[in-house]
Amino acid sequence: MATIYDIAVGAALNVVTAVAFLLLFALLRLQPVNDRVYFPKWYLKGTRASPASAGATVAAAKYINLDMRSYLNFLSWMPAALKMPDDELIQHAGLDSVVYLRIYRTGLKIFVPITILAFAVLVPLNWTNDTLETLKVVHSDIDKLSISNIPYGSKRFIAHLVMAYVFTFWTCYILMKEYQIVAKMRLRFLASEKRRPDQFTVLVRNIPSDPDESVSELVEHFFLVNHPGHYLKHQVVYNTNKLAGLVEKKKQMQNWLDYYQLKFERKAERPTTKTGFFGCSGSDVDAIDYYKSEIEKIGKEEADEHKKVMKDPKSIMPAAFVSFRSRWGAAVAAQTQQTSNPTVWLTEWAPEPRDVYWNNLSIPFVSLTVRRLIIGVAFFFLNFFYVIPIAFVQTLANVEGIEKALPFLEPFIETPTIKSFIQGFLPGLALKIFLILLPTILMFMSQFEGLVSHSSLERRTASKYFIFLFFNVFLGSIVTGSALEQLNTYLHQSANDIPRIIGVAIPIKATFFITYVMVDGWTGVALEVLRLKAFIMFHLKNFFLVKTEKDREEAMDPGSICLYWSEPRIQLYFLLGLVYAVVTPLLLPFILVFFALAYVVYRHQIINVYNQRYESGAQFWPNVHLRIITALIVSQLLLLGLLSTKGLEEATPALLALPVLTIWFHKYCKHRYEPAFVRNPLQEVMRKDTLERARERNFDLKAYLADAYLHPVFKSNEAGKFYVADDPGAEAVIVPTKRQSRRITPVQSEDGGSGRLNLMESVHKR
Amino acid sequence: MATIYDIAVGAALNVVTAVAFLLLFALLRLQPVNDRVYFPKWYLKGTRASPASAGATVAAAKYINLDMRSYLNFLSWMPAALKMPDDELIQHAGLDSVVYLRIYRTGLKIFVPITILAFAVLVPLNWTNDTLETLKVVHSDIDKLSISNIPYGSKRFIAHLVMAYVFTFWTCYILMKEYQIVAKMRLRFLASEKRRPDQFTVLVRNIPSDPDESVSELVEHFFLVNHPGHYLKHQVVYNTNKLAGLVEKKKQMQNWLDYYQLKFERKAERPTTKTGFFGCSGSDVDAIDYYKSEIEKIGKEEADEHKKVMKDPKSIMPAAFVSFRSRWGAAVAAQTQQTSNPTVWLTEWAPEPRDVYWNNLSIPFVSLTVRRLIIGVAFFFLNFFYVIPIAFVQTLANVEGIEKALPFLEPFIETPTIKSFIQGFLPGLALKIFLILLPTILMFMSQFEGLVSHSSLERRTASKYFIFLFFNVFLGSIVTGSALEQLNTYLHQSANDIPRIIGVAIPIKATFFITYVMVDGWTGVALEVLRLKAFIMFHLKNFFLVKTEKDREEAMDPGSICLYWSEPRIQLYFLLGLVYAVVTPLLLPFILVFFALAYVVYRHQIINVYNQRYESGAQFWPNVHLRIITALIVSQLLLLGLLSTKGLEEATPALLALPVLTIWFHKYCKHRYEPAFVRNPLQEVMRKDTLERARERNFDLKAYLADAYLHPVFKSNEAGKFYVADDPGAEAVIVPTKRQSRRITPVQSEDGGSGRLNLMESVHKR
Repeated sequence: MATIYDIAVGAALNVVTAVAFLLLFALLRLQPVNDRVYFPKWYLKGTRASPASAGATVAAAKYINLDMRSYLNFLSWMPAALKMPDDELIQHAGLDSVVYLRIYRTGLKIFVPITILAFAVLVPLNWTNDTLETLKVVHSDIDKLSISNIPYGSKRFIAHLVMAYVFTFWTCYILMKEYQIVAKMRLRFLASEKRRPDQFTVLVRNIPSDPDESVSELVEHFFLVNHPGHYLKHQVVYNTNKLAGLVEKKKQMQNWLDYYQLKFERKAERPTTKTGFFGCSGSDVDAIDYYKSEIEKIGKEEADEHKKVMKDPKSIMPAAFVSFRSRWGAAVAAQTQQTSNPTVWLTEWAPEPRDVYWNNLSIPFVSLTVRRLIIGVAFFFLNFFYVIPIAFVQTLANVEGIEKALPFLEPFIETPTIKSFIQGFLPGLALKIFLILLPTILMFMSQFEGLVSHSSLERRTASKYFIFLFFNVFLGSIVTGSALEQLNTYLHQSANDIPRIIGVAIPIKATFFITYVMVDGWTGVALEVLRLKAFIMFHLKNFFLVKTEKDREEAMDPGSICLYWSEPRIQLYFLLGLVYAVVTPLLLPFILVFFALAYVVYRHQIINVYNQRYESGAQFWPNVHLRIITALIVSQLLLLGLLSTKGLEEATPALLALPVLTIWFHKYCKHRYEPAFVRNPLQEVMRKDTLERARERNFDLKAYLADAYLHPVFKSNEAGKFYVADDPGAEAVIVPTKRQSRRITPVQSEDGGSGRLNLMESVHKR
Repeated sequence: MATIYDIAVGAALNVVTAVAFLLLFALLRLQPVNDRVYFPKWYLKGTRASPASAGATVAAAKYINLDMRSYLNFLSWMPAALKMPDDELIQHAGLDSVVYLRIYRTGLKIFVPITILAFAVLVPLNWTNDTLETLKVVHSDIDKLSISNIPYGSKRFIAHLVMAYVFTFWTCYILMKEYQIVAKMRLRFLASEKRRPDQFTVLVRNIPSDPDESVSELVEHFFLVNHPGHYLKHQVVYNTNKLAGLVEKKKQMQNWLDYYQLKFERKAERPTTKTGFFGCSGSDVDAIDYYKSEIEKIGKEEADEHKKVMKDPKSIMPAAFVSFRSRWGAAVAAQTQQTSNPTVWLTEWAPEPRDVYWNNLSIPFVSLTVRRLIIGVAFFFLNFFYVIPIAFVQTLANVEGIEKALPFLEPFIETPTIKSFIQGFLPGLALKIFLILLPTILMFMSQFEGLVSHSSLERRTASKYFIFLFFNVFLGSIVTGSALEQLNTYLHQSANDIPRIIGVAIPIKATFFITYVMVDGWTGVALEVLRLKAFIMFHLKNFFLVKTEKDREEAMDPGSICLYWSEPRIQLYFLLGLVYAVVTPLLLPFILVFFALAYVVYRHQIINVYNQRYESGAQFWPNVHLRIITALIVSQLLLLGLLSTKGLEEATPALLALPVLTIWFHKYCKHRYEPAFVRNPLQEVMRKDTLERARERNFDLKAYLADAYLHPVFKSNEAGKFYVADDPGAEAVIVPTKRQSRRITPVQSEDGGSGRLNLMESVHKR
């Protein structure tokens, strides 16, 4: 049992670590040499140039800040980060980032009043009992502040009941407000946006194959017939996976060549390399010559592949980006079903060009459902069999466990400070390291599922990760830890008793989660602002590779908010806060500190560092909302389980109403606000269309959209030279068809609008 | 414990009853006097006239069939019912009826091979054991055929496991095939349909209020701006609930007047009535004069109300039927979101005019979610507290229970035939009577929820009814009955054990369900064909009221398939069949007989009797599919529970895969086929539009749609005189607005397309 003293030592340790990191950051960020590590966003914006180019008056000043005054207020970045108003921040970093920050703000809004109320009402109520002392249970001072200290059957539980209601209503109120605000922000953002290719474009997948017409012709005919007057142009999708591989390989080779050339310049001795396995086996050759010839070879291959892709009809995927004359036309095409077979001609809003995940564009429908099943089963196993290592970590983190496993360490461990250190630091840290690898695996799983945009991939991965965290970190920590402590008593119980079992274990686990919040939350956030990895990588590259300004530009890695692993982790704090709000209010201040610190740090990072890869317009908010609601319901069920053992008969029915009401609230919110994140209302697009048409009468939309949705491989290589220049012309509404005769292809009568086509054909023939 | 003998007596009784009903039907239907009871459909079609009007050559022949030959083959209606081909049947009775019959056919398709396989494999396997005899358990011969006869831990259970897989795959295969066929039928039906108002019309609900414009103007402006070139006309919805009430009251009074006038004609003595409570209190008055004056009074009231409704803007509801120039326009409007606020301007496909449930058209959005919550909670209580009376019925139906409660009946009950009668007939009959009232209550609940079409009301009620039947008839019969028999042993167990508890009770309950199938299924269906209620009502009316041919027409009540109470009952048979297929295959033949008999009877009724009130195009099929899938999963879980007690460790994981696969299969089917029942593909509507435009160039769609969506009250009264004749004209695309100034109503800038309106205004002013 950890005591208040243990917690205090842990807190002190974490505060010291966090403050050390923050100090280090404050020092490092003032050095001009680190400017590109801590302010890359401004370089990308073009408002900041390398100090080198500003003229080297003092050689040292290029690398080290000699202005002593600037060191004095080393926390000045914090108010600076908070200064920028939201509208400017949206302009600066996009809506996604601003709404991401709102998650932390929502946390503060929810938990500040809850903390105050809990400390005003529940803490005194819990403290003024002596149940634990009378029962002579092993307990710590923390337990004296928790619900455990209330005697069996006491009427005081009514206060906890009422508080559960108050907390639920407050949380729901804030959630609704936030949903409202975010929805409004999104709509305003979409309305104020400049012309963007994805506003006019729809992604069409599963185009059926046709023996008479190519994919391109088929798409054109289909949309000319079924969306007459709205269709503008389309861009077929090529299978460029091989080509992209070659380009990637060439780039690597170029990197090696640069490396060896640099080496040669410095040492004036021609470097050699081995041709075999990763340069470790095979015969020695001159490295520069070797890589030069390799690059030439790959370049040739690439050109061949390029030609092949353009010519071979098999390399055209059954998918296309179809653009329309107006936003209205695109909105209609994206929201409607095209044919009676719902598995072909699937239309959806085209993601932003930057957001497209090209590799998945060609997966057919049947394969998609099978892939989803496979990933479902795989994720199930990953989720439930990962518990074993966590249990192992938990056992180690237990002082008594270590003493039993390694008895010779006992005298060492029993030193009070060491013991506190182990109990206050190790469990969280071990878990943390353990979890670092996971998001990448989950991302691979989502990619295999076949989603077509980076944003949807991130959202899907975030859901998986949250489920994982819930079962393995939250429930896993409670049940496994308790199972070790309480000797397997309830491993053989049934599903009905689970809320009770976990509920009862919840107060016991408070100290563990406090240390977890400190290590993962406080220290983790402080590490985030330090950007250790980017710092090291930049200086390594800067030292070894950078020759020109452009190289330095490339060595800079602004990174981005990785929604798929950071958002679920925030959700874990929501879960902890809501679960412990009634049970052990002492946890709440720790969570508040986390939310406040993280808010400032991420705001700073978003302003100065991160460069988002795409802009989804806060499409992830419904997921955030859903997960907080889930956390709320879990907290209610666990409280129900806990109180059912406390001898208050009236509690169960009174608490059962809460999850029902919460689920209903969620349904209401989903119905009321979610459409704003999924669909595109016609009134809005019509207004934009009308305004734009009035302003710019002769805008050439076709030229504007020409190569918006060309695969980046084509773009980077030969500047859009290869896009298919099909020009049906605005006037040619009568569609020439290549079909030879009706009789040869009778099966085709049900596809691509042939009804009208043939009608027109016959009209034509007369 | 019921023995084979009990079952045989029960079966004999039921067969005799059913055959008696069928014989009676065969006799009655041949009498010309009953022609309008048993063949009303043909009268409505106009292909059959009253025998009276055909010339009364033989007076008696008008009422009684004297042709002796026709009595000889009294079952001739059965092959006749089967003769009509499906396409003709669709023409004759609509797609809904034909697809309804497919449910029975699906039952036959699923259960015929399953029965054969179960009898070939499982029955011999179960029979060739003597577990029950060795254990000296009280058992009947039926149990010897069931899974109970296999010894603990026997390898024979593997056969049951394999059969569970085979049955699941077969059921899924048939379900997929049927879904495919029904979807194709629906698409062909929709494609072949003639022009219908609902193809061009969209129901718009929650039109926001506007201080400057009336609802009618607002609708016109909104759709002219946001669907330019497609909007044609609209029809506002009036609050006619009071008016409809008056019309109804007047009709009742007219009925009474007719009754007293007839009485007067016969008795030549002026009848009197009392003015008070239902003619039971108050002073005596002359009945004919009284009703005449009453009718006059109500007629005046009605006319006043009529005027008020037409003039008062408050009686115009914020809902409208908006019609478009083409099916394409309507399809687009129905499938897209109109404004950024998803709670206003809600569009959906207009139901058929006949299908509209007028009373619910005006319920606002917030009220809808609250209503849904209320009904959810109310249904929960109805569902779970209805169990009590069922338990009571079950206790009574138990011979031992009756003997205990009423000991003086013992000698009477112990007579073997009486005992068999009680055990074979009473439980089913009591349950049956008990359930008759329920569907009406559930329908009221659905109406309160605010659905706007009869078809969706029926579907929603069917879902509720199925849930009720599942919990109360199926689970209630098993758990309560068993609880009485097995002395409360597992009432205090947990949720995890429920599949085990029920699974174990399943074989014991087989005899109960066999009697249930016989009473509810066999005799019930035979009663259905007899149409006892319609028969009595028609002859009563015919005797007392009918004077003219038109009266006789009105006395005729063809009725319709009440999907909301008949479909869930069929589903109960699917559930029983699937659950008992592996456990007690003896139940299967009884279910087969039911499906076959019901198929023939309902086919006959659909051809000769029923007249559907509306046509939804088989929109209920996804629900049918979902419920069979549910039954399948329930059967798998119960088998899992049962086998977990049988000492075969390998069974659990092997069976766990089944529900996962089944759920995945359901998801696949939903994704693949459901859109055909919900959305309207653009390709199809475009094809129809194009064909029609080519055929009838100058069709006046506006006149055609003029009063299609007028409330029936207006229509019946003054033949559509009252519909609002707003004629924006095809040319007037520039919308005159009534707004006084932008400055007065700044709040309005976000509604009804004012963006474009004001743009046009300003263009206009120049």
